[in-house]
Amino acid sequence: MAKVAVILAGCGVFDGAEIHEAVCTLLALSKRGVDYQCFAPDIEQAHVINHLTGEVAEERRNVLVEAARIARGEVKALASLDAGDFDAVIVPGGFGAAKNLSDFAFNGTDMVLEKELERSLKSFAAVSKPVGLLCIAPVIAPLIYGAGVKVTIGCDAEVATAISAMGGEHVDALVEQPVVDEVNKLVTVPAYMLGPDIASVATGIDALVGKVLALAAH
Amino acid sequence: MAKVAVILAGCGVFDGAEIHEAVCTLLALSKRGVDYQCFAPDIEQAHVINHLTGEVAEERRNVLVEAARIARGEVKALASLDAGDFDAVIVPGGFGAAKNLSDFAFNGTDMVLEKELERSLKSFAAVSKPVGLLCIAPVIAPLIYGAGVKVTIGCDAEVATAISAMGGEHVDALVEQPVVDEVNKLVTVPAYMLGPDIASVATGIDALVGKVLALAAH
Repeated sequence: MAKVAVILAGCGVFDGAEIHEAVCTLLALSKRGVDYQCFAPDIEQAHVINHLTGEVAEERRNVLVEAARIARGEVKALASLDAGDFDAVIVPGGFGAAKNLSDFAFNGTDMVLEKELERSLKSFAAVSKPVGLLCIAPVIAPLIYGAGVKVTIGCDAEVATAISAMGGEHVDALVEQPVVDEVNKLVTVPAYMLGPDIASVATGIDALVGKVLALAAH
Repeated sequence: MAKVAVILAGCGVFDGAEIHEAVCTLLALSKRGVDYQCFAPDIEQAHVINHLTGEVAEERRNVLVEAARIARGEVKALASLDAGDFDAVIVPGGFGAAKNLSDFAFNGTDMVLEKELERSLKSFAAVSKPVGLLCIAPVIAPLIYGAGVKVTIGCDAEVATAISAMGGEHVDALVEQPVVDEVNKLVTVPAYMLGPDIASVATGIDALVGKVLALAAH
């Protein structure tokens, strides 16, 4: 039976993992009888956003502790993720992917990756195990796979240009349409970069999970 | 097109709305093209639980503000929920239903309901509009519908006994098996009171949403 790691960036679209995307990923895995384990970096969030007002709150929260809300307590520190234990890894989106797992939201194409995210994803890439990236998370792909990596974030011109500037090849896609880079075994899907609703997002994520598992089986 | 209100008790299984249940509810509605609006009481959480350790944290969080994480910011104060604007209402589970929407987790059968929850659910019941309650949330049914109301929370003997003590009729059920009280137009399903996985929980919630909408159409 396949076993898949899921990397969460907190809990909430504006400062963490996008909750619908994370849950739809777990659901798509569970429906197929695939075992999963959630991971998150044990670091402080870049900031806390009040999701009702959109304003920055005077609070501090830890990414791993908040990710545990999505994982119902069953989450491990990203530092313990060993590619040898899993067939594939998937990273849901949300601003946390661009604020906690990387700093793309603050530094654009000058971004750096969170060190355990970089280590763990590179370790999957090094042994040709498939990776799935959702929503805004594909911006990190050029820093993992290098020039020529093929991804989609939907059709946002600004983000697509940033991906190209970092050496990636951006492909426009619809929300239900995962893009597969067969060489790198990387699957990406627009999710809430396009929306517009959870049903469409779930359809695209389910398709991504199917493609990730198919690549894992080869 | 049907329009359904969803009442959230925060964001996280141990002190708020169970995230998987809430998201699976929204997904089941969206898949059917049903419009939904999330609501939550504008009150402080009973407490904050660190979901990684299970311990009470020295923090304060607001139920409405945290619920906004699940709702991607699109949530309204429960005080503004008018049964006249919706065809049905659904309340996902999680300890928040027993800590924030009621105090069942602390006071058992002596519990009282959060005042806006009581007002809003009674207003749906008064005009015979269907209500769906998931997981532990059915413990509130006797205080809304009175004696004889038929519900399930799965097969937990202690909670079932408490429901009976408050005048309800508990029916054992499997996770995929919603129980329908046709007289009260109330649908309940065990969800994570049984689990064991998100796929099973999602199947039961999808069936509950189908039954709630069928009752709304009559």
